[in-house]
Amino acid sequence: MTAPRLKTVVLGAGGLVGGELLRLLSMHPQVEAITAVSKSQAGVRAHEVHRSLLHLPDIELVDLPYKDAAQGADVVFCTLPHGESRMQMDQILSARPRCIIDLAADFRIRDSGQFEQAYGTHQCPQLLKEFIYGLPEAFAHLIRQSRLIANPGCFATAVQLLLLPLADKKLLADNIAVFGVTGSSGAGVTLTPATHHPFRDGNLFAYKMLAHQHEAEINQTISEVAGEPRRVRLLAHSGPFVRGIHATAYFNENRLAKTNVEQIYREYYKNHPFIMILNRPPQVAEVALTNYVHLHILQKGSEVEIALALDNLVKGAAGQAMQNMNLVFGLDETAGLTFPGAFPC
Amino acid sequence: MTAPRLKTVVLGAGGLVGGELLRLLSMHPQVEAITAVSKSQAGVRAHEVHRSLLHLPDIELVDLPYKDAAQGADVVFCTLPHGESRMQMDQILSARPRCIIDLAADFRIRDSGQFEQAYGTHQCPQLLKEFIYGLPEAFAHLIRQSRLIANPGCFATAVQLLLLPLADKKLLADNIAVFGVTGSSGAGVTLTPATHHPFRDGNLFAYKMLAHQHEAEINQTISEVAGEPRRVRLLAHSGPFVRGIHATAYFNENRLAKTNVEQIYREYYKNHPFIMILNRPPQVAEVALTNYVHLHILQKGSEVEIALALDNLVKGAAGQAMQNMNLVFGLDETAGLTFPGAFPC
Amino acid sequence: MTAPRLKTVVLGAGGLVGGELLRLLSMHPQVEAITAVSKSQAGVRAHEVHRSLLHLPDIELVDLPYKDAAQGADVVFCTLPHGESRMQMDQILSARPRCIIDLAADFRIRDSGQFEQAYGTHQCPQLLKEFIYGLPEAFAHLIRQSRLIANPGCFATAVQLLLLPLADKKLLADNIAVFGVTGSSGAGVTLTPATHHPFRDGNLFAYKMLAHQHEAEINQTISEVAGEPRRVRLLAHSGPFVRGIHATAYFNENRLAKTNVEQIYREYYKNHPFIMILNRPPQVAEVALTNYVHLHILQKGSEVEIALALDNLVKGAAGQAMQNMNLVFGLDETAGLTFPGAFPC
Amino acid sequence: MTAPRLKTVVLGAGGLVGGELLRLLSMHPQVEAITAVSKSQAGVRAHEVHRSLLHLPDIELVDLPYKDAAQGADVVFCTLPHGESRMQMDQILSARPRCIIDLAADFRIRDSGQFEQAYGTHQCPQLLKEFIYGLPEAFAHLIRQSRLIANPGCFATAVQLLLLPLADKKLLADNIAVFGVTGSSGAGVTLTPATHHPFRDGNLFAYKMLAHQHEAEINQTISEVAGEPRRVRLLAHSGPFVRGIHATAYFNENRLAKTNVEQIYREYYKNHPFIMILNRPPQVAEVALTNYVHLHILQKGSEVEIALALDNLVKGAAGQAMQNMNLVFGLDETAGLTFPGAFPC
Repeated sequence: MTAPRLKTVVLGAGGLVGGELLRLLSMHPQVEAITAVSKSQAGVRAHEVHRSLLHLPDIELVDLPYKDAAQGADVVFCTLPHGESRMQMDQILSARPRCIIDLAADFRIRDSGQFEQAYGTHQCPQLLKEFIYGLPEAFAHLIRQSRLIANPGCFATAVQLLLLPLADKKLLADNIAVFGVTGSSGAGVTLTPATHHPFRDGNLFAYKMLAHQHEAEINQTISEVAGEPRRVRLLAHSGPFVRGIHATAYFNENRLAKTNVEQIYREYYKNHPFIMILNRPPQVAEVALTNYVHLHILQKGSEVEIALALDNLVKGAAGQAMQNMNLVFGLDETAGLTFPGAFPC
Repeated sequence: MTAPRLKTVVLGAGGLVGGELLRLLSMHPQVEAITAVSKSQAGVRAHEVHRSLLHLPDIELVDLPYKDAAQGADVVFCTLPHGESRMQMDQILSARPRCIIDLAADFRIRDSGQFEQAYGTHQCPQLLKEFIYGLPEAFAHLIRQSRLIANPGCFATAVQLLLLPLADKKLLADNIAVFGVTGSSGAGVTLTPATHHPFRDGNLFAYKMLAHQHEAEINQTISEVAGEPRRVRLLAHSGPFVRGIHATAYFNENRLAKTNVEQIYREYYKNHPFIMILNRPPQVAEVALTNYVHLHILQKGSEVEIALALDNLVKGAAGQAMQNMNLVFGLDETAGLTFPGAFPC
Repeated sequence: MTAPRLKTVVLGAGGLVGGELLRLLSMHPQVEAITAVSKSQAGVRAHEVHRSLLHLPDIELVDLPYKDAAQGADVVFCTLPHGESRMQMDQILSARPRCIIDLAADFRIRDSGQFEQAYGTHQCPQLLKEFIYGLPEAFAHLIRQSRLIANPGCFATAVQLLLLPLADKKLLADNIAVFGVTGSSGAGVTLTPATHHPFRDGNLFAYKMLAHQHEAEINQTISEVAGEPRRVRLLAHSGPFVRGIHATAYFNENRLAKTNVEQIYREYYKNHPFIMILNRPPQVAEVALTNYVHLHILQKGSEVEIALALDNLVKGAAGQAMQNMNLVFGLDETAGLTFPGAFPC
Repeated sequence: MTAPRLKTVVLGAGGLVGGELLRLLSMHPQVEAITAVSKSQAGVRAHEVHRSLLHLPDIELVDLPYKDAAQGADVVFCTLPHGESRMQMDQILSARPRCIIDLAADFRIRDSGQFEQAYGTHQCPQLLKEFIYGLPEAFAHLIRQSRLIANPGCFATAVQLLLLPLADKKLLADNIAVFGVTGSSGAGVTLTPATHHPFRDGNLFAYKMLAHQHEAEINQTISEVAGEPRRVRLLAHSGPFVRGIHATAYFNENRLAKTNVEQIYREYYKNHPFIMILNRPPQVAEVALTNYVHLHILQKGSEVEIALALDNLVKGAAGQAMQNMNLVFGLDETAGLTFPGAFPC
């Protein structure tokens, strides 16, 4: 059987995640065509907007109605701003592409009540249940059979991968908090005071305290995997680096004293090619530019500290979206995604 | 009564903390003399080693026996490497300086058993009980009556200031974890792979997982203030900035729902001039180069997130040492320490 | 004679340079009052906008007509955007403040023809000749007798201080180029792609190639001091740091072989307290947060390389403005400006 | 004809350039085997030393006599410290590998007199003339016919590529200076104060003023290509980023007014696949992690400013070495080297 040749479309190709998708799709061996749609930057060569594309084949940013762009496509990656996806989804669906992978938060929460609590009114709540949450390390079996994928948030990916194995073993306590630090690229291409270089360089600060929007999707997954309601707090911080997320959790529970937690993680992730369990603390810079996730589990009796690092634009967004594409189309899960990092970088 | 004129001595003046002390002492209105002792850099102008001194009066680094240096001194600041202070303390004491402020860990733990558990054998364990732990926001009354001060560790200062008011109200749970990130200057002047610019820039990673040596002094203070044994874990991380420590704690307890936690903090710190409670998350860069500590408390019912930032070399080391000197000599606690920060910096 | 007590006004107090002025004026021993005018941020406490003010006395940003604000003022610092100063100068002048120090480019060029070539039409060209160019190291005698000061640009300050002594000795060749790198704070508070943290961090690039607007004022000063027309190119670059400018010049001329260039610099700058000539290359981080300028001159026969570092917001803007204020009011040139830097920072 | 399968050896595989070579060779389609020799780190998995290798096939660092390691090798990459290569070259040669590519400075200068002036006594001066200087954009025809290659220095590569086309057209003046800024990875794995994070972050400074050792090889190439003696000064600076070199040159000559300098560059580099001439200033971050060199030429009459950026570890070291290997073995010059960069990174 010959491998499929995929026609891909990226909506919102002018953003950082859009650019990252263009970069990764350009190197994917099964991708035959890339249509890059951008309303704001139409007519411009993609590499003028995304310098990451200077050494890859030329792509033009075009302004097409989303329906036209999606017509005949194998995959439509939707990297529109949060709130915009749900407004456009009817149009995109009407073109009947074989698969839609939405990278906004708009379809990540299946329960419309919970969605509204986190994000406000939804324009097409009936669609929420149609989308599968695209975290391959939890839901690969469902993703393979789906055509509508809601790609996880970057911080949400980190926190879920940090907790999944414990949840799966029903060893995760309720109401825990995870500490996380993100690089500035997580804020996207939009200029903000928090990403103004004079204010961000040499700085670190908490943000969205007790109110990070990714908690909703984290709680949904963790509760489902655990088989019991679980609520997780993400204590989010902004750090003075560009790429990467670091997340840390701490547990101190008697029932853990009797388990080898690292073994649980190794078992859970044994068939997941992008998860690497190290025997030393992971570093943000060593996963930068890759789809890999590095984990370290340190246990002393009933106490466990787990640290994780990933690249927010790759495993936290565009890379994971392509991983989902691979699963949907029956490709090797790692196709086009095994590129290594570089260190120092 | 005229203000005293102090003769000061800095032992170990070639290190980063030593240099910071020279800088701060040079600007202190009551400091009359500074003797800067360095075995490794003797004969060199201090500004050749510490560029921070280029715009301050010239000081020479000298190699004197510690006993001779301490003779006739009002204050001896001991910034020798951990382990070296306790070897030299007999010599220093024999010169009978009016006050000794030790910035190493050597005299921070009063109980010799607990000291040995954290740091190994002590050469003069009988001295441990003679030293007062120099955290003014907890022990100002004792410091004022003491002549031997053990200056707190940088991370320990941050974690204690984050937790003190809750401990004082017996509202601090046992076995909690605090998440912290430190800049590279915390590692001092010694070159290490973790502070090699190609490896540290753009990077963030956990270190000393479940094994940070500052936990011993944190536990000692918090237990004492709480009046009950309390154990705290410091989840330490290294971040890609030079100055500053950020610490974050999270609580979710029913008994907190009935309290206004911010009010507890405002009450506890109301007479402590260096603690500022903000209505937004503190930033590392806004406390850099100051002796101030910024705190923010966010509460939602039973949940509380507290974030703190301070400068590791100032409030975390040299500035706090000078604050202790002020207390010991009956000066205004803030003398020479109200210099503002600069932002952006 | 008692020292004067100065009433100061800062117009445009919401920008980075405005904030830096508030910070420095707050610490100036002769400054009695600071009125901070900001149209965009009126009603806000200054420290909400400028975190550098958190540890200084509270100031409120107010929206006053510029004429009213300037009424009765000893000094009006005008930090309005380039082009705005000249629109408002009539209003400000009509209030008859004792002194106006303009920090924009609007009054830096005395010849209206040359002004227009660099910046376009001027609304009040007759005023151009009324302003004195406020570079104390070249024009202190004129500044002392003036009431209208045009404060130099940050890069222009660096380049002129790099070249003045050679120009003064008629040893400066025509058509030379100076290489400069600036930190991101030079671009001010306005968010731009070039100061977006994901794009600036770890990056360095040339900008305004063969077209930097500061060349006009550089050429004006250097030609005047040299007594012959001299044209200088500034090869400007943006670097991944916040504060500071580094400038480098290279000469290879036979006539230099017979001179001791460092001696010429030491002689020229001997009465200028902010210029420090070092025996090793200056570092941007060691002048950060100070009004000092570090220079190093290395000569090998006819070849000379000169390197210079200064802080763009202090000596390159707010500090120099205050230095000019000191001169205008007959204060010690260094009043309020001898604060040291900190290193590492 | 089938493509050759190459057996490669890296001597000094514990350094930064050694690690970069292992990374690039691991991805090269014609490389069949990699032997990584390190005296200091023998027995360690390469990814324990070089985190860049975590996502590539496992390699072990071994301690072999250089002669044994080189036996039967197609290519020996010698990344020993400067001065060490020439001590070991006899040993390596005696194993008769098909090709040796030396990445130190030891064989870059053909004239033994000039070598000694720059670097001191040479142990095997008779070998100097046997090596071809491996700058493919100048000497591809010679490299293709050679088996002994001296790989250029990182800064030397940048400066030569900046000047070659003008030299080739005999339009390069004598005694010009080029301004350059390098990232911290250029200093290698050895810990130094200049690469201590607290001292390097947020900093920029000149180094080796009028004494950069790369000038010797620059002068050799430029003089040869120009057909007349040409001396170039490299004004080197250290910047606060990890990867990359930026170089800038400025010319103001009447004879240039009549030429289209950009056209000369486009013509010269038209068959050189790694040189990209942009219509805007190049950025260090956009060439990071690639073998590409970005150039921009801006001309105004007789004035020309040329800016260049490259990655010091790739095109400035390991990538160029592999480019030379491609040429020596008759492979496509770009084999294994067309990997794109990523931006932001």
